[in-house]
Amino acid sequence: MKVNGVDYRTIWMEQTSVFMIEQNLLPFQFKIFEATDYRQSCMAIKTMIVRGAGAIGAAAGFAMAQAFLQAEKEEAPDFLLRAKTEIEATRPTARNLFYAVERVFAAGQISAENAVAEAQWIANKDADDSQAIGDFGMQLIANNARILTHCNAGWLAFVDYGTALSPIYKAHQAGKSIFVWADETRPRSQGARLTAWELLNENIPHKIVPDNAGAYLMQKGLVDIIITGADRIAANGDAANKIGTLEKAIVAKHYGIPFYIAAPCSTFDLNCKNGGDIIIEERDQAEVLFQTGPDAEGGLRTIRVANPESEALNPAFDVTPANLISGIITEKGIIKANVDAIRNFISPDS
Amino acid sequence: MKVNGVDYRTIWMEQTSVFMIEQNLLPFQFKIFEATDYRQSCMAIKTMIVRGAGAIGAAAGFAMAQAFLQAEKEEAPDFLLRAKTEIEATRPTARNLFYAVERVFAAGQISAENAVAEAQWIANKDADDSQAIGDFGMQLIANNARILTHCNAGWLAFVDYGTALSPIYKAHQAGKSIFVWADETRPRSQGARLTAWELLNENIPHKIVPDNAGAYLMQKGLVDIIITGADRIAANGDAANKIGTLEKAIVAKHYGIPFYIAAPCSTFDLNCKNGGDIIIEERDQAEVLFQTGPDAEGGLRTIRVANPESEALNPAFDVTPANLISGIITEKGIIKANVDAIRNFISPDS
Repeated sequence: MKVNGVDYRTIWMEQTSVFMIEQNLLPFQFKIFEATDYRQSCMAIKTMIVRGAGAIGAAAGFAMAQAFLQAEKEEAPDFLLRAKTEIEATRPTARNLFYAVERVFAAGQISAENAVAEAQWIANKDADDSQAIGDFGMQLIANNARILTHCNAGWLAFVDYGTALSPIYKAHQAGKSIFVWADETRPRSQGARLTAWELLNENIPHKIVPDNAGAYLMQKGLVDIIITGADRIAANGDAANKIGTLEKAIVAKHYGIPFYIAAPCSTFDLNCKNGGDIIIEERDQAEVLFQTGPDAEGGLRTIRVANPESEALNPAFDVTPANLISGIITEKGIIKANVDAIRNFISPDS
Repeated sequence: MKVNGVDYRTIWMEQTSVFMIEQNLLPFQFKIFEATDYRQSCMAIKTMIVRGAGAIGAAAGFAMAQAFLQAEKEEAPDFLLRAKTEIEATRPTARNLFYAVERVFAAGQISAENAVAEAQWIANKDADDSQAIGDFGMQLIANNARILTHCNAGWLAFVDYGTALSPIYKAHQAGKSIFVWADETRPRSQGARLTAWELLNENIPHKIVPDNAGAYLMQKGLVDIIITGADRIAANGDAANKIGTLEKAIVAKHYGIPFYIAAPCSTFDLNCKNGGDIIIEERDQAEVLFQTGPDAEGGLRTIRVANPESEALNPAFDVTPANLISGIITEKGIIKANVDAIRNFISPDS
C-alpha cells in the first residue's frame, strides 16, 4: 500500500537482506530497517520492528532463508538447526511463525535458492490472501458507507492490504465513496496511530474517535457497518480480538448494525471448541498508566496519564460470541459464524 | 472527603477569602488556591481551578458574597451589578451558577453578612444533598459488590461526597467490603485521574480500566452494578452524561447488570421532553490527539498520541435512553426513569 505516494509492503527480501518498515517508530517517523543476516531479522521480530500475524510469519520465513544463504559460508554443522531454534524463540506465541519456519526449512534441504523462493512464496501468499479478503469484503460496503473499525487490522499487520482494512482499500480502489471511523483503541492506541496513518496515506477520508464514542455514533445513525480483525476464532465462531471489540459488537447488535470479522483461514483454531477455551493475556498495567509520543519538539516522551499509586487492569483481548457476528470474511469467502459453516469450510489441517 | 488523611471540601470560605482545591493540578499535585476577592474567584471558575456543577455553583455563590463584602469599600454605585454580570459570564452554561448568584444577590440586599450566610447555606446544601444521594444509593450496594463507574462524579465535582461516588463512600463508611472499577474515560481521563485519586485517598480498593474493558468485565461476571452521574436528565428520564456512558448502559442491559444514574434533582430539565432535545457539545479534537501529564522528572508535558494530520471527532456527552436506566438516585430518593415517576417527583420549579 501507499506511503507518501509510493507503494510498499511491510517486509520484503532483496539479495541477502530483509527490509522492514520500522513499525516501532510509526506513525511519527517512517524508516526502513535492513536486516543483513538472520540474527538481525530475529532481533527485528523480538523488538517488534515488525509486528502482526502475517508480517511476523513472512519475517520468520525470510530469516530462515537468510540462514540458508549464510550456511554456505559457515563451518558449524548444526548452524541451520540452531538458527531455526533461534528464529522460533523470537515470538513463541505466533502460530504463523512456526508454519513459515518449517516450510522454508524443508525447502532449504534442496538448495538455499529454494529456501529463498519458498520464503518469497509465503510473503506473496499472505499478500494475495489479504487481497482476496478485500475482494470478498468490499461487496459488503455500499457506496457512501460509513465503516467503523477497531484497533489495526491493516496492511501493517500483514505483508500488504491486511484484513479488516482490506475491504476498505478495495472499495476505495473500486471508486466507492467511503468514510472510516478509526477507534482510538486504548491502551496502545493502534487505531489512532496505525490505522489512521494507513488511511491517511491511502487518502481515505477518516476520523479518529475515542473508544467511548462508538455507541454515540451508532445511535446517531452514523455507522453502516463494523469490520474488525481477529486474533483467534474458535470452532463455533467465537472470536478473540483486541479489547473493546466485544463492546462494539454488543452495541452494534443493539442498533441492528452489521458486525463482521475479517481474518485469514489460519486464524481458525479448531482445537478451541468455543471462546471459553481462548486464554486472554493480561498485559503490563504500564500501558494504561503511561503514554508515549512526541512532544512539541518532536522528541519521544513518556508521560503518566493516571493517578499515581492507583493500579490498572489491562486485558489485551476479549471474546465476541458468535451470535453477535454477522459473518467472517476470509480469503476463501464470507462464512457464517457457526460450528456447521466453519466445519464445512475449514479443513482441520488448513 | 479525605486527602492524605485530612478532611477537605472542594471549596470553602473563611473571612473574605474563598479557598479551592486546584483541580487543574490533580492528581499530580495537591494545592489550595486562595481567592481574596470576587475577581479572583471568577478567574478560578473560568480557568477550571474549580469544576463540576455543584462546586461551580458554590464558587459563584461565594464570589457574589465576596462582592458584597468588597462593596462596603467601593464607591461605584453599579459595583454589585457589574460583579453579578461578571460572575455570571464565567461559565454561562452552568445552571447552578445562575441559581447561586441570584440567591446570594437577593440575600445581600439585607446585608453583606447575610450574603455570606446564604453562600455558605448553598455550599452546605450541596454537601448535604450529596450525602443524601449516598445514603439512598448505598442501599443498592451489597457487601462484596464490584461497582463500575464512568468519568468523575465524585466529591471533586461537588462540595463534598459527590453523586455516583457518594453511595460508594457511604457503603465503605458503613463497613461494606467493596471494589470499584474506574473507567479511564478518554479523552480527558477523569476516571483514571480524578476518580482514582479520590478512591485512593479514601482507601477504597479500585483499579483503573481502559474504557474498552467494560464488556470484558461484565461478560466475566466481574461487575455487580454500574453507577454514573448525569449532566442533564430530560422529563422522560433520558440522561446526558460523559461520552461512553451510553455504551456501558447498553452492555449492562445485554448482561442484565443494573445501571443507575446518581444526580441531584437540579439535574432534571423538564423543558427537555426527551434526550433528543439535549444538545451535545463537540469539544476540541486536540483533547483526543494530545495528552498531558508528568514525565519521569515530574514536569508536565504535552505529547501527541495519534497520527499527525489525521483529524478526530470529540463529542463530549451522549444520551442514555430511559429504558436502559434501572433508576435515578437523587437526594430525595431513588426513582424510576420514566415520565410519570419524574413528573410526580420533581416540581417544575425545583
